[in-house]
Order: sequence, then structure tokens, then C-alpha cells
Amino acid sequence: MTELDGVATRRRAGRTEKVLVQRVGPDQTGGRSPDELIVEEPLSIQLDGTLVATTMRTPGHDFELAAGFCFAEGLLGDATIRGCRYCGTGPAAETEFNAVTVETGGMAPPPTARLGTTSSSCGLCGSASIDDLTARLQPLDGVDPFPIDLLVALPDRAVAQQPLFARTGAVHAAAAFDRSGELVLLREDIGRHNAVDKVVGRLLLDGRVGTAGTRATGAATPADMALYVSGRASFEMVQKAWAAGFAAVVAVSAPSALAVRTATIAGLQLAGFARGDRLNLYVSGL
Amino acid sequence: MTELDGVATRRRAGRTEKVLVQRVGPDQTGGRSPDELIVEEPLSIQLDGTLVATTMRTPGHDFELAAGFCFAEGLLGDATIRGCRYCGTGPAAETEFNAVTVETGGMAPPPTARLGTTSSSCGLCGSASIDDLTARLQPLDGVDPFPIDLLVALPDRAVAQQPLFARTGAVHAAAAFDRSGELVLLREDIGRHNAVDKVVGRLLLDGRVGTAGTRATGAATPADMALYVSGRASFEMVQKAWAAGFAAVVAVSAPSALAVRTATIAGLQLAGFARGDRLNLYVSGL
Repeated sequence: MTELDGVATRRRAGRTEKVLVQRVGPDQTGGRSPDELIVEEPLSIQLDGTLVATTMRTPGHDFELAAGFCFAEGLLGDATIRGCRYCGTGPAAETEFNAVTVETGGMAPPPTARLGTTSSSCGLCGSASIDDLTARLQPLDGVDPFPIDLLVALPDRAVAQQPLFARTGAVHAAAAFDRSGELVLLREDIGRHNAVDKVVGRLLLDGRVGTAGTRATGAATPADMALYVSGRASFEMVQKAWAAGFAAVVAVSAPSALAVRTATIAGLQLAGFARGDRLNLYVSGL
Repeated sequence: MTELDGVATRRRAGRTEKVLVQRVGPDQTGGRSPDELIVEEPLSIQLDGTLVATTMRTPGHDFELAAGFCFAEGLLGDATIRGCRYCGTGPAAETEFNAVTVETGGMAPPPTARLGTTSSSCGLCGSASIDDLTARLQPLDGVDPFPIDLLVALPDRAVAQQPLFARTGAVHAAAAFDRSGELVLLREDIGRHNAVDKVVGRLLLDGRVGTAGTRATGAATPADMALYVSGRASFEMVQKAWAAGFAAVVAVSAPSALAVRTATIAGLQLAGFARGDRLNLYVSGL
């Protein structure tokens, strides 16, 4: 899957960059010193050559990001991804790696210009957004819940695997854990949606997600995985988790009300404020 | 400015909602109790009747959000906003307040479909993104820097004015402070970009921002204000601050490398990790 990886030596930019910082505080001298910051660069995502999104992201795992985005947003329909490639055509060499196209050989529905979470300008509300999801996604009825003590343990295990966060303090992470509590994979990105898309994209490109993709041979699928996210659980995070088929979402911070309603309809466990030996499990229906 | 406010009694939804939560931890009994979560609903933003964006936001101050977004993204050109109004046309009553149109009487450039931060699919990179900004924005040459000890004091003053955060732990805040350290206004939203757009939009609708708007009579303008943001300082946050003309940005968390480069070119003070009696001042050019 090297050709689908998007992290190979062709990557032009690093993921961190040095700048000068003047530290201000009671015990500081006021001099300037170097500091390491996270890199943020735009990535345009095309589906069969048509632009479907532009996102500010941390370079690396670009094919996963593009594939995961197209899948989780429902853009692929029943199509299978045949490949991903860089397609930048700008004048500067550095633009070459800031555009990726996901190729389905024209089998995906023709993409339309998308604006944020929906292209509809009417009938727009949280309930309608959930209705859109239920029209294309099945509730996760056959999925066993995760043991709560296992969910509680995930954040500490994830944080130990977030090197970019340790160096910059400025990146979100998303990770998949299996039912033995083992880390399947973790991705870091300046955008929390991007981090989830990269995790979903990797699983998709490995044939572990979706009914139309290559079936994995014995490898765990998201139905036996919990998705960890280092920030809040908003509607779109739950939407992506549902689309991929995760059994649970564990967020370090709070969920939104719409996220809880969506998770309840999906039949997906949703935990928030997962810190130390605590978490909150949320259910809609007051 | 009541008609431009978008927070009046017409607002259909609250900004928080109760759900059931099961608290898990060493001292918990496992029962379910009510918890207050932040509301997240889609808002479609139209400019002279054309859809330009859809964002997941916390309801309230919707006209500010729509106006601020259009201004900060450079969609208004030299046009003046004549008014904002709800324009939802969906079948359900609840959709009525999830669509806002910003009216310039057709004086704004015709909006094109925008995808994320740019509609260009080539020549796309951080440097090009900064070039786009410098093409429409002037460096803030005549703006005096803020005293550093004043910048250090802002986060504690802001946190004391974040009621939704206190209740839900799930919202970002943006705030404008003047040179005496007084809070001019603060907005909370589930989206950190939205919170900034609401602050910029309020200042714009009050005639304190921009060359084409109504000039304020003696009221402070962003050149004499610092923008506080409760999260990280990414490129888009600095872009919005520059567009509005703020003298400084103070972020509670880290900036991105591209944000530092942008702030340096803009001539805008950029502080990050502003917590307690400390902060970092960032400068590009290593």
C-alpha cells in the first residue's frame, strides 16, 4: 500500500517548523529562543478530478486524509477507491504535494460543490442533518458495546503515542483501539477532523471499512474498535465514526447535544471528559 | 441595531440542552443524571442570496456570525452591509433560523462557491495563502503594539466572562479588549472560528471596522484592541484578526507555524500559551 500512503519520501514539508519565541513570565529574561511549531498547509481534495474540499492540515498521510474524508462524508457511494495521487499543478514545486485526487474511475457519484457540512440551503437543522445520515447509514445494531473500564483506559494510552503533541502542544490526535485495548493506529493533525479522516482513511485503504472495499482477511474492523479523539465530540466527529462503523467514541472533552443525539440513533457508545480514571457516558432522550 | 442582532426573541433554540449522563469513576454509583451540553446547529450563510458557507455553530448572534464571516473572508469587497435577515425556507419551523443572508444590494463581488479556505485547486500552499492576504490587506504599520503585561492579563479576564464554558466545558470564546484592558465584547461558540467571526461581525455592524462601513464616532476600533482566543492560533484565526485590523492576538494554546509567518507579515503581535502569568511572543524569521 506504499503507493496509497502519501507519507513517503516525496513529502516536501516537515511536520514541525522552528520559529523564534520570546518567553514572558516571572522567571524569564526576555531573550528570544527557537521554538518548534506545528506546520499547517492547505490540502485540496479532489474526487475523480473534481475539487470537493480544501482543508488546512498538517502534511503527511495525505492519501489517508483524502480517502477518509471522501468516505466519511458519503461522497464515494458504493464505489471502490482505485488509487490516490498527488495532482498539484501550481508553479512552485512546493504546491505539488498540496493537492490529492482520489480515483474511483468515475464510479463515485458526480461530486457537487460542497459547502461545509451540507450543500442544502433550506431544510437545514440538526434533525435534518441526522435524517441525512440515517438515509445512508444503518444503526450499529449488531455491535457489542465496549467494557467501560477499557474505554476509561484509552486516553492515557493514546497520549503516550502523540509525539507531535509532545513537541508542539498544538495538534489533535485520533486513534483506533481494539477490544483488547491495543492501539491499532493513531494520527495527529492540526485539525481534529483531519486526524479522524486519516484514521478512517488508513482503515479504508487497508480494506477494513465499508461494504464495497476489499474485505480484510481476518483483520479487525471498526465494529471491534473504539475511536479516541483528543478534543471534543462534535456532530461531525460522531458522523465520521458512524460512517466507519466504530463501536464507540471516547473524547477527552465534551460532546455537543447534537453529537449525543446522533450517537444514540447510531447505537454508538459516546464517552466524553475521559480523563484519568473518569469519563461520562452520554445518552439522549431526556 | 436590534434588527441586525440575530439574538432577539425570534431565536428558536436555546444554547444549551439537557441530556442524560452516566458518570464513571472511583466515587460514582453508576446512575444516570441530567447534564447540560452545548447546542450545535448548522447555519447556512448567504451573501445577497447566494450560499457562501455552511457552518456548525451554537445558535445566537447569527447576524454577527454571518456578517463577520463574509467580511473576514474578504467576500464583501468594498461593499457596505445594508442588513442581515433570516431566510430559511425549510418545511419545519425550526429551520427558519438556520439560514441568514447578508445583504449588500448586489454591491459585493458575485460570490463563487467556496471550498474551505480557498477555491483554487492549484498554486495552493501556505505561502500562496499569505500572498492572497497581502494582495487585499495592508500590513498594520501604524498600529502601536500592546504592552506585554496587559496581554498577559487578558486570559483570566476573559475566562471570568465565559458563562457557556462554565456550564458546558465545550465552547470556545473570542473577545476584544481595549488598551486599558477593558473587555469590549466576548462571544462563545462551539466553533472557534465562529466565535471570532461573531466578534468581528459585531464590531463591523457597529461601524468600527473597515473602510467602507459607517465610521464610528469616537468609539475604539480594532487598531486599539487585542483579540483573545480561547484555543489555538491557526492561520485562519490570524487571517481574520488581520482583516479586522486588530493590533494583537492572544491565544491560550499554541500557534501554527503558518500563523506566525502570517502575523509577522501583518505586523500583528501574536502571543500563545497565555496562561496564568506567562505567555510566548512569536516572531517568524529563523
